[in-house]
Order: sequence, then structure tokens, then C-alpha cells
Amino acid sequence: MVRASRRRRVTRLRVGDDGAVEVNARADTIAGEEPLELRLNGRPFTVTMRTPGDDFDLAAGFLVSEGVVSSMDHIAGLRYGPGVHADGRASYNIVEVTLAPGVAPPDTSAERHVYTSSSCGICGTASIEAVTKTSAFDVARDGLRMTAAQLLALPEALRAEQSLFSSTGGVHAAGLFALDADGPRLLCLREDVGRHNAVDKVVGWALRTNLVPARNTVLQVSGRASFELVQKAHLAGIPALAAVSAPSSLAVELADQAGITLAGFSRGRSVNLYTRADRVRTD
Amino acid sequence: MVRASRRRRVTRLRVGDDGAVEVNARADTIAGEEPLELRLNGRPFTVTMRTPGDDFDLAAGFLVSEGVVSSMDHIAGLRYGPGVHADGRASYNIVEVTLAPGVAPPDTSAERHVYTSSSCGICGTASIEAVTKTSAFDVARDGLRMTAAQLLALPEALRAEQSLFSSTGGVHAAGLFALDADGPRLLCLREDVGRHNAVDKVVGWALRTNLVPARNTVLQVSGRASFELVQKAHLAGIPALAAVSAPSSLAVELADQAGITLAGFSRGRSVNLYTRADRVRTD
Repeated sequence: MVRASRRRRVTRLRVGDDGAVEVNARADTIAGEEPLELRLNGRPFTVTMRTPGDDFDLAAGFLVSEGVVSSMDHIAGLRYGPGVHADGRASYNIVEVTLAPGVAPPDTSAERHVYTSSSCGICGTASIEAVTKTSAFDVARDGLRMTAAQLLALPEALRAEQSLFSSTGGVHAAGLFALDADGPRLLCLREDVGRHNAVDKVVGWALRTNLVPARNTVLQVSGRASFELVQKAHLAGIPALAAVSAPSSLAVELADQAGITLAGFSRGRSVNLYTRADRVRTD
Repeated sequence: MVRASRRRRVTRLRVGDDGAVEVNARADTIAGEEPLELRLNGRPFTVTMRTPGDDFDLAAGFLVSEGVVSSMDHIAGLRYGPGVHADGRASYNIVEVTLAPGVAPPDTSAERHVYTSSSCGICGTASIEAVTKTSAFDVARDGLRMTAAQLLALPEALRAEQSLFSSTGGVHAAGLFALDADGPRLLCLREDVGRHNAVDKVVGWALRTNLVPARNTVLQVSGRASFELVQKAHLAGIPALAAVSAPSSLAVELADQAGITLAGFSRGRSVNLYTRADRVRTD
């Protein structure tokens, strides 16, 4: 079951200095993408397009990100469902999660994506409260400290381990680093065509390893930092999120409120700190 | 109401050759991100995190991408809802869409995100059929033809017009180009913190300009080509999608089935054609 990538015939065009077009047909490796159906307590819950692999991590992390669980004690069972391919092979594209007794499944009514009442509307500062899920963890008090050099080393450390990116050039990555006495140490790296999935897989791994809340860690991502990624970090108890590219305005606002250190444009020699810069030592 | 970006205080760290850390506090421009609530026929439909601006395009394009509408005749009204900020100013974060009589709103029951019955599961080839929305347009028969040089010129043409990216470094872009007698001509460019939103805004613009199906056009995007972006092109009647970065396996499969020309890694001098290479002239 190696489906994280696929081989596919590609026509490659290259224009020379004289304007002539060179045509090459060859086989290329492409990042895999397939739907995953997540069932909760026997009922359909959601479908996400993801790169196959680490599906239990993805399922568990998705439930953390949705605010449904915050500990493995909340999950009684994780297994593949009965889906099969046309030729009879197991498809591994359905994951069934059983919540522990007493854990309430989320509201899946039509209104579940709507976070505000009709009367208040969605607006400015209030909107953050409206769309923010409540975290079980107080990351603002996390005692994480790191040096600027440690923070700046994370993107390259992530990149060096991205095997799927190396072969396809087309996936996002998320890595969870421990900032303990031995310096940054990569705990878990996940790659996926979807950047949210890559983070959910890391968060799910942390949950299943009983590392949630993930104290004294930094979540390094390959792309931008959106509101949703900051929220995922918050719900997993991760005190710092570092992105290679830019954050959005709402990402900064949520990080500010939650007490998360948010770093952006982390590019080897320089990095921007948008919130909680006090955790990064510059001496 | 200029909220496409925000000014924010940032701490910038830079490490010198001697390892010393230079610290600069300054104001920086950050891409705006706010929630938009979409209401359909008076009922809550969805909330998306987006960069404010071109919200009617986003709403219309989202409904095209969901397979709800394929013509402006299907939309009776588009207007901002009653949301207000805490200080009383209009929030412009709710858009209300009224469908024309006879146009069925989508099923918003709990099962709407689940595309298959329990008996068949989600699997290989069948999964594409299961997750694919039916397009009203036969893009496979679109007579689009372009030269390799025209295709290769699109990323730079897009980049040159990306004003928000220039100021923030942190947004995705989508541009619709007409390939007519005058060569590639940019019809519409939209930027957004979400790459799906950028495409929805372009598609919505096309719908509102009565350009759907968008025959003889190429949709150029700044990032990768996922299944969902190919699907959005298909539903809008766009015969070609070109990405600066990699496609996913399911993007290639859907483009193949739909008869869409899919180009990836379009980087100035070279480009990969994954499907329908016959539309690109190399002589």
C-alpha cells in the first residue's frame, strides 16, 4: 500500500534561447491525493482530500482541531472502515472513530459551520471570539524559551527530512520540535497535499503519543500561517508556531490573545516575530 | 473600508556572520483575513475565512464551485447582511444570496459532505466519481489553442499585477487569461489568503460578467493544483488550469477525465503538461 505518490506520464516543454521548444515525454512522481471519509460513532462526519498515510494521526488530529477531543482518553477506538476498490482490495479510505463514553460528538446540524447568531453578525474583534474554539490548555503560561539561532534552524531541519517533497516537489510539511536541553529535536514530521492535513497529522501523532498538551515545542510549517493553523496549535497546547511564509492578520490576532509565539518569514538568517517575542533570546 | 491588509508591529531578528542577533521593531503590512458568512435564501450556509474585498465575486464563485449555480440567471440577489462591528460600523462580513425561483439550494443536512453510500465505500477510481460534482459544461470540446510561449508567460503576467502580494508577501493569486487573437489577455486577477477563495473570486467575477462557461481561457494560479481547483475550473467551463507548483494525483485524474489541460511547474522557461497537451503548440 504505497500510495503517498503516483507515477504518471508527463510532457515537459522547455523553451531555448532561440525560442525553439524542446518536448520531452517522461514518467514523473506526483503527490498522492485521495478522499478520506471520517466516521464518528458510526455516523458520517466529514470527508477530506488528503495524501494517504498516517490516517489515524489525521483522524485524531482533526478531532483535536475541531475541539472534540484533547486526550487519547477521549477516543475509545480508531480503525479502518469497510471500503474496497473496484477490484476488491481494501481501500483504506474510511476511518471509523469511536469516542469514549461521555465524550460528546460535535453538532453536525446544518448550522454547525455558522458561529454567530443572526443578531450579532460577524465583525472585527468579536469575530475572533465567534470563530475561536475553546482550548483546554493555557499555552500563554508555557515556559518555552529558545535562542534566535534555534528558531532559525527549524525550516532547514524540516526540509532535510521531507522525503515526499523531494520526490514530488508538491506537498506541504509540518514538524513538531522539542526545545529541550539538547536543542531543537524533531519529534514528528508529516507531509500532505493539504497544509491543514499536515498539521492535523502532527497533532494527531502528538495526541496518540500522549504528548498533548505539547509543552515546550515549536510547530514549524512549510507555508503560511493562517488563523486555522494558529487555532490548531492552540487546541493541541503548542506554545509556538513558525512559518516559512507570511501570517494573516487574524492569525496574529489569535496568537496574541492565546499567548502563542508566532514567527513568520523564517528564512535562515532572519525571521519576524509577531507575538510573544519574549520567548526568543537574542543575547 | 480598506481591510485587504493591516499594519502591525513586528520584531525582526537578523543573525550576522558573527552570530550576533540584530533586533528591529517596526510596522509591517499583513494580509487581511476575516470570516465571511454566506447566507442562502435567508438561511446560514457556510463561513469561510477570506481576505475582505470582492465578496460578491467570492459568494457567486463559491456557489458555482458547489454546483449550485452556473449562470447569473440562477441568482436573484446578492447583498451585504446586517452585521456590525462593536463600534456600530457595518462589518461587511455577511453576504446574503437569493437564488432565482426554481433553483434548488444544496442539501445542507449532516450527510452533505459524504459522497458515497456505506455499502460502496470510497475507493480508487470510483472515488473520483463519488466526489466529483457534475459540470454543466463540456470543456473537453473547448477549441482552446495556445503556444508554449504564451503559456509560459502567464505566471509573470500574474505576478506583475499582484499588488497585495507585493505589500504583504503572503497571499495566493488566481488570474483568468483570454487566449484570443491578441495573445494572452488578463481578464481578472484576485488575491486572497486562501487559494480556493482566490479562484472562487475569479470564477464569481466570470459568472457576474456572463463569461461562464469561460471558453478559450486559461486559469493561472500561484500555488499548487489540487483536485478541488481542477473541479472549480471544470464547473466554470474553463478548459485549462496552469499552476506554478505541482499538481496532485487526483487533480491529474480529474483533468484527464474532464478534458482539461493541466499544466504544472510553470517556471518561465519550462512547464509540465499532465493532460491534454494537444492544446499547446510547440512548433
